[in-house]
Amino acid sequence: MFYHDGKLQFDVKVDKPNPQFAKMLQQAIGGIEGEMKVCMQYMFQAWGARGPEKYRDMLLETGTEEMAHIELLATAVALNLEGATNDLKDEVAKDPFMEQIMGGANPRHILSSGMSAMAVDSSGVPFSGAYVVATGNLAADMYANVTAESAGRILATRLWKSTDDKGMKDMLAFLIARDTMHQNQWLAVLEELGGVKGNHPIPNSFPQAEENPDFNYNFISTHIDGESKAKGRWSEGQSIDGKGSFTFEKAKPLGKKPNLGKPHPDGFAQKEQMKANPSMAEDTINKLK
Amino acid sequence: MFYHDGKLQFDVKVDKPNPQFAKMLQQAIGGIEGEMKVCMQYMFQAWGARGPEKYRDMLLETGTEEMAHIELLATAVALNLEGATNDLKDEVAKDPFMEQIMGGANPRHILSSGMSAMAVDSSGVPFSGAYVVATGNLAADMYANVTAESAGRILATRLWKSTDDKGMKDMLAFLIARDTMHQNQWLAVLEELGGVKGNHPIPNSFPQAEENPDFNYNFISTHIDGESKAKGRWSEGQSIDGKGSFTFEKAKPLGKKPNLGKPHPDGFAQKEQMKANPSMAEDTINKLK
Amino acid sequence: MFYHDGKLQFDVKVDKPNPQFAKMLQQAIGGIEGEMKVCMQYMFQAWGARGPEKYRDMLLETGTEEMAHIELLATAVALNLEGATNDLKDEVAKDPFMEQIMGGANPRHILSSGMSAMAVDSSGVPFSGAYVVATGNLAADMYANVTAESAGRILATRLWKSTDDKGMKDMLAFLIARDTMHQNQWLAVLEELGGVKGNHPIPNSFPQAEENPDFNYNFISTHIDGESKAKGRWSEGQSIDGKGSFTFEKAKPLGKKPNLGKPHPDGFAQKEQMKANPSMAEDTINKLK
Amino acid sequence: MFYHDGKLQFDVKVDKPNPQFAKMLQQAIGGIEGEMKVCMQYMFQAWGARGPEKYRDMLLETGTEEMAHIELLATAVALNLEGATNDLKDEVAKDPFMEQIMGGANPRHILSSGMSAMAVDSSGVPFSGAYVVATGNLAADMYANVTAESAGRILATRLWKSTDDKGMKDMLAFLIARDTMHQNQWLAVLEELGGVKGNHPIPNSFPQAEENPDFNYNFISTHIDGESKAKGRWSEGQSIDGKGSFTFEKAKPLGKKPNLGKPHPDGFAQKEQMKANPSMAEDTINKLK
Amino acid sequence: MFYHDGKLQFDVKVDKPNPQFAKMLQQAIGGIEGEMKVCMQYMFQAWGARGPEKYRDMLLETGTEEMAHIELLATAVALNLEGATNDLKDEVAKDPFMEQIMGGANPRHILSSGMSAMAVDSSGVPFSGAYVVATGNLAADMYANVTAESAGRILATRLWKSTDDKGMKDMLAFLIARDTMHQNQWLAVLEELGGVKGNHPIPNSFPQAEENPDFNYNFISTHIDGESKAKGRWSEGQSIDGKGSFTFEKAKPLGKKPNLGKPHPDGFAQKEQMKANPSMAEDTINKLK
Amino acid sequence: MFYHDGKLQFDVKVDKPNPQFAKMLQQAIGGIEGEMKVCMQYMFQAWGARGPEKYRDMLLETGTEEMAHIELLATAVALNLEGATNDLKDEVAKDPFMEQIMGGANPRHILSSGMSAMAVDSSGVPFSGAYVVATGNLAADMYANVTAESAGRILATRLWKSTDDKGMKDMLAFLIARDTMHQNQWLAVLEELGGVKGNHPIPNSFPQAEENPDFNYNFISTHIDGESKAKGRWSEGQSIDGKGSFTFEKAKPLGKKPNLGKPHPDGFAQKEQMKANPSMAEDTINKLK
Repeated sequence: MFYHDGKLQFDVKVDKPNPQFAKMLQQAIGGIEGEMKVCMQYMFQAWGARGPEKYRDMLLETGTEEMAHIELLATAVALNLEGATNDLKDEVAKDPFMEQIMGGANPRHILSSGMSAMAVDSSGVPFSGAYVVATGNLAADMYANVTAESAGRILATRLWKSTDDKGMKDMLAFLIARDTMHQNQWLAVLEELGGVKGNHPIPNSFPQAEENPDFNYNFISTHIDGESKAKGRWSEGQSIDGKGSFTFEKAKPLGKKPNLGKPHPDGFAQKEQMKANPSMAEDTINKLK
Repeated sequence: MFYHDGKLQFDVKVDKPNPQFAKMLQQAIGGIEGEMKVCMQYMFQAWGARGPEKYRDMLLETGTEEMAHIELLATAVALNLEGATNDLKDEVAKDPFMEQIMGGANPRHILSSGMSAMAVDSSGVPFSGAYVVATGNLAADMYANVTAESAGRILATRLWKSTDDKGMKDMLAFLIARDTMHQNQWLAVLEELGGVKGNHPIPNSFPQAEENPDFNYNFISTHIDGESKAKGRWSEGQSIDGKGSFTFEKAKPLGKKPNLGKPHPDGFAQKEQMKANPSMAEDTINKLK
Repeated sequence: MFYHDGKLQFDVKVDKPNPQFAKMLQQAIGGIEGEMKVCMQYMFQAWGARGPEKYRDMLLETGTEEMAHIELLATAVALNLEGATNDLKDEVAKDPFMEQIMGGANPRHILSSGMSAMAVDSSGVPFSGAYVVATGNLAADMYANVTAESAGRILATRLWKSTDDKGMKDMLAFLIARDTMHQNQWLAVLEELGGVKGNHPIPNSFPQAEENPDFNYNFISTHIDGESKAKGRWSEGQSIDGKGSFTFEKAKPLGKKPNLGKPHPDGFAQKEQMKANPSMAEDTINKLK
Repeated sequence: MFYHDGKLQFDVKVDKPNPQFAKMLQQAIGGIEGEMKVCMQYMFQAWGARGPEKYRDMLLETGTEEMAHIELLATAVALNLEGATNDLKDEVAKDPFMEQIMGGANPRHILSSGMSAMAVDSSGVPFSGAYVVATGNLAADMYANVTAESAGRILATRLWKSTDDKGMKDMLAFLIARDTMHQNQWLAVLEELGGVKGNHPIPNSFPQAEENPDFNYNFISTHIDGESKAKGRWSEGQSIDGKGSFTFEKAKPLGKKPNLGKPHPDGFAQKEQMKANPSMAEDTINKLK
Repeated sequence: MFYHDGKLQFDVKVDKPNPQFAKMLQQAIGGIEGEMKVCMQYMFQAWGARGPEKYRDMLLETGTEEMAHIELLATAVALNLEGATNDLKDEVAKDPFMEQIMGGANPRHILSSGMSAMAVDSSGVPFSGAYVVATGNLAADMYANVTAESAGRILATRLWKSTDDKGMKDMLAFLIARDTMHQNQWLAVLEELGGVKGNHPIPNSFPQAEENPDFNYNFISTHIDGESKAKGRWSEGQSIDGKGSFTFEKAKPLGKKPNLGKPHPDGFAQKEQMKANPSMAEDTINKLK
Repeated sequence: MFYHDGKLQFDVKVDKPNPQFAKMLQQAIGGIEGEMKVCMQYMFQAWGARGPEKYRDMLLETGTEEMAHIELLATAVALNLEGATNDLKDEVAKDPFMEQIMGGANPRHILSSGMSAMAVDSSGVPFSGAYVVATGNLAADMYANVTAESAGRILATRLWKSTDDKGMKDMLAFLIARDTMHQNQWLAVLEELGGVKGNHPIPNSFPQAEENPDFNYNFISTHIDGESKAKGRWSEGQSIDGKGSFTFEKAKPLGKKPNLGKPHPDGFAQKEQMKANPSMAEDTINKLK
């Protein structure tokens, strides 16, 4: 169950409203690397958590914190839209600020939300529940979470670089710090679970003897023109999970050309696709019911 | 540039076609953890790769291999649909196999594709370009790739567990092995890039001095009822990236309740929302043009 | 800012797990009439609220409660999936319960989430941020909220009717009661704002003198064959908002057939579309660069 | 069955084409508050209407009118794009009109549609069938319709405010008037059905005795820091539906912390998640097939 | 402008309601090959039509007819759902018809629409405005329309084959006939526009001298293993548009390996990606603001 | 199986990077008329191809070529973004180039991809697997392919017209030429399959005697006001498929008004919708469980 106090986790001040920046901030709300995604991702991981209780509890803690981050950003969007208007009249062309607004702003910030945040990304594409990853496997989920916090921190640094507004820079410096923590937090779980050698290959509960042992540590090169430059730590030496040795091999087909045969008449392909099939002569086909 | 030979990377045999399994296999084609996603993800990462050339080359190699995996799975879907028909007539009710087909199969495998694979997941939801992650930051992308191969291997093991068909089990055991390699491969890049301490916090090119130092290694607990159980490696000791020390802190607001004030008349909120604003008396509002 | 205690707002007990019911419950999580939608809708309305403070506060209260409802339902999905397995082997055909599971269950509950809830609806379609309505106009938002709680209560009653499981019926009876309250709650705001006569036409801050007075209280009938039966309270008498009188009129065009003329050569239409245009003779077109 | 005459319901004149305004008008075509939505919504409600015939007939009348509104707006978009070209050459930078076009216009109006309207919103996001609400419950649908016409009228007033073009202002003043009528029309149905007390709680055919009587008229406050300001008509007095009395209560959990136990081995979680389960010792897990 | 008479274009009778068939019929309503798509596609093509008036008029005629087809199918869905209930109780397991319903039906037909049609396809995926193709080029649009009516007729024949219900077979035989006409209708426009030789390459208004003449009639073979079997009418002889001669050529790269260089520091890639760049030594990077 | 050589199919040079043009190029990558669509469409058609082997092989050849086209365009996007930065600071307003970038560019090219291509269209809408058409009917698929290459060539000509950059013009002239070939290629298959008379109506394997012979060659006019101008090759003379004669007929309903009766109580409509039904008196309804 959840509670609130109506206050912000960090101060949100906007010295000079900027509708273009409001549009860019939307990426951090409704984008695939945004706060709605991490909030819902940690929540769904918690609500479906099976196994040691502390991981469920921790996911719930941080999912709840992320809700406060959406709140920060939604407030920042609204404040950056203060004063934005839907004015496309003649004089607008002469006003660089208005031009800037209409040129680079999200028109739905005026038309649909009345100068408030929306559940969309910086292109105006709605947030999707498909972004929410919760596999039921704790290690896979932790990698998904490190990924989310890495892309999230990259996004926040790019936003931080895009603005001179002190209030916005402060808020982003706070969020960047939280992303640093959260990267470390999910890495800490991976360490607790046994580290790279203990966790991989994920899922570690599948008996590795069942996978095809001829192809589990081979770098397969599809390069056909001279020698490949794609060599490195992954093409020789012990594998990172410690359970095999890397090799480098040229790709070659182990199967042959597939032949799906003639189409079944119920699928109503063209007759020409079925002709070669003696049991489906044209008169037969024409009698189908 | 790309080439092909029309042969399969591995044998695809289906002893007993099963339209339900065809539906399930679609998750591995068009799902967020499927092969279209990893194929396109590695391709887009390669095409946008800046920095050391070998990573670009390696991404292209594996992206090209993944295209062959989509081919394997699409062939497997088509073979599992051999003999499936769109028959809902009376006699169907008496045939448990047909019942099973119509009950659990994807109707579009009959109606839309004529018993072939589609670019959708096991719910019939189309593949989305939003699944393709390429941030321009190599370490973040590698975590995204480990995540993809982890979720992909989990999916493949669950599919492997779902079938008794020897051909399908063999194909999946091959794909599971490739996922093992690819997990190791992306982890190898992370190791080359400096390992956890070298890479984190991602992006490591943002000057960490600019992030808010009061909040970058604190586990923030939003739990309000008694003591939280969410304690572990992440709540004390040196941080995983070696650049700080974990602390455990109770969440508390640093900002105050936001007040967005009165709505701008151009947004056409209700008059009652604007009333308190002396500069927007009702007669003024009614004269707006 | 938000807090949690890890406990459920109401007991969630499942006497007999049922994967089909798990699939149906997803509608109440990720569907357009589900709890993710109302949670985010009330939150975004609160975060963008301008005008009297109490409405912002109230929206935040109920948005926070709705997060607890997602939690209830996600827990119910996980419990209904206990014991579900991904077994499609021969013996399955003999087991009607397994048949039922594979026939009607969401395959991603096994393949993608490992027997946990997902951010999707009962068809497996992901939740969309487009469902979240927050217009910046309080009265419009309240109607959106009454709509959401009405569709939500209808959904909950249909789910309640679908099950005999006592625990599930109890949980749904609780959610149905909350929907009753929330319908009343948003209606109470509409009453406070002035009721139907005070609020309509929404937005009431647009000067009604600017709308076309010849068409604002006319029921326009497009029916062409004999007399329309579409008569009722809306076709005569005082309008509901008290600002006009209903009339019933036959539809007739006030404009003429539009003529967009010839296409601009830059659009590269077919030459035949441009021919009639003397200024764009073919040789001219062929010289375009 | 449907018919047409090729004429417009109202005159569409554009004095000065404006590609940016064309982009904004798309919100009224393909947006969640646009005409495609209401057209399809009223149609689907009509086609699924059960109960008194007159409501079906009326929905069909207005759904048919809305099709003419899409036609108006699509014509307006095409006329606003007259003269727009896909010119990004050097001289463009010097031409403020061209700059305006490329800066704020939808590139697909040039690239994909050749200067015509599309089935998308003002961000270019395609119209979605998910916007179409038809619940089978007449009262819920009427609230959905009032909501749609309220958001639609707000949108139209914001567009009206955005332009000085007389033709566009006239067309919008017509559409705003129709939205006034349609708000009243759906409210009239709600009045006929019994008004607030007769309709609520929706659905009124569910026996209210079955809902949990302890929670159906309580405002639940999740606020934890001092006294909540979220008080008003909804926190005391008779409920709006006349069937209960509002109370104000502090949120408290009625359920306990959920415990989903250990994951089933078929889900291939990490071994560490299953360890505590004596019946799933590691050697057992490794023998799984 | 549009009108209606409330009658159906063809009789819709359902002898034996079948919720599974209702689900399948949704493909013909909201699918990419369904009637919503063709209705909206012809409408948007008409509304944006530039050039000879008769094509605009014809598109409007057939777009209006397609609206009546959606109506037929929506009625058929509602009638196939008569008697469907949301009953998952114990006795259901014993009733094969109920089992069939719950196994193969769309749960939203019960939960969301109350036994009526929805704007979704047979997987429950919502209709998308992205399906609506209107390029501004008449010939391209005609091909899109032939494609739509071909896929539509294939779908209708597969549905016809799926049912024994006489009423449904009659309705589908009517729709199949209309698809025959509409295929011919769009082909007739292509003939009027000059046939294959006159229309191609589309757009025929682009000066063909501007395209690269070395690559416009060459079949490029990417096949690398022995001789390709991909030979036919397209690999030798005069081209179909009569403007060139087909050749068969092995694919070979004309460009070299791309090198995007080092990432710009503002993008916050990893430092390792920037290292080789002398102007971006680490200390410089760390001083970035 | 697939291979690569890391080189480009054609040179990609960008003389003057232009972030706006990068945004426009995205339409040719992730748009419904873009290269991801044709690549995947030809691949899925090949992988599901039944009937003569040469068509499968040919589809695979061209699908593989299209992958190289995505590569060309992705490279072009990255090069057009060289030098783009996320700078919204004060001085930006004074810099027309920066203004242009922020005004018309896709913010995600900076925020999400770090100046690289993404799997989205020019509005930022993600590529969708729904664009991929593969019906199992070869003739229908060929029409889908001619459509794709026509829309694709139109798009490429519009892009070509939008730029003065010589490198970009050369690349586009190459792609335009390939589209010319591919239009011819799919038309060649249609000719081989029997031409218009042999192929239509598609599917030609459905016995035409089963379609309703009264409606398969009639142009149905829904026009109600005076005489329709929608006359042409399609309204008289022999049909294009040679199997009938065109007629021109006024639309008239063959069915009557549908009556779906009263709603089933399990659907929880409003009581007022059920009232007229004697078997569902209100007290009965209230006793429902």
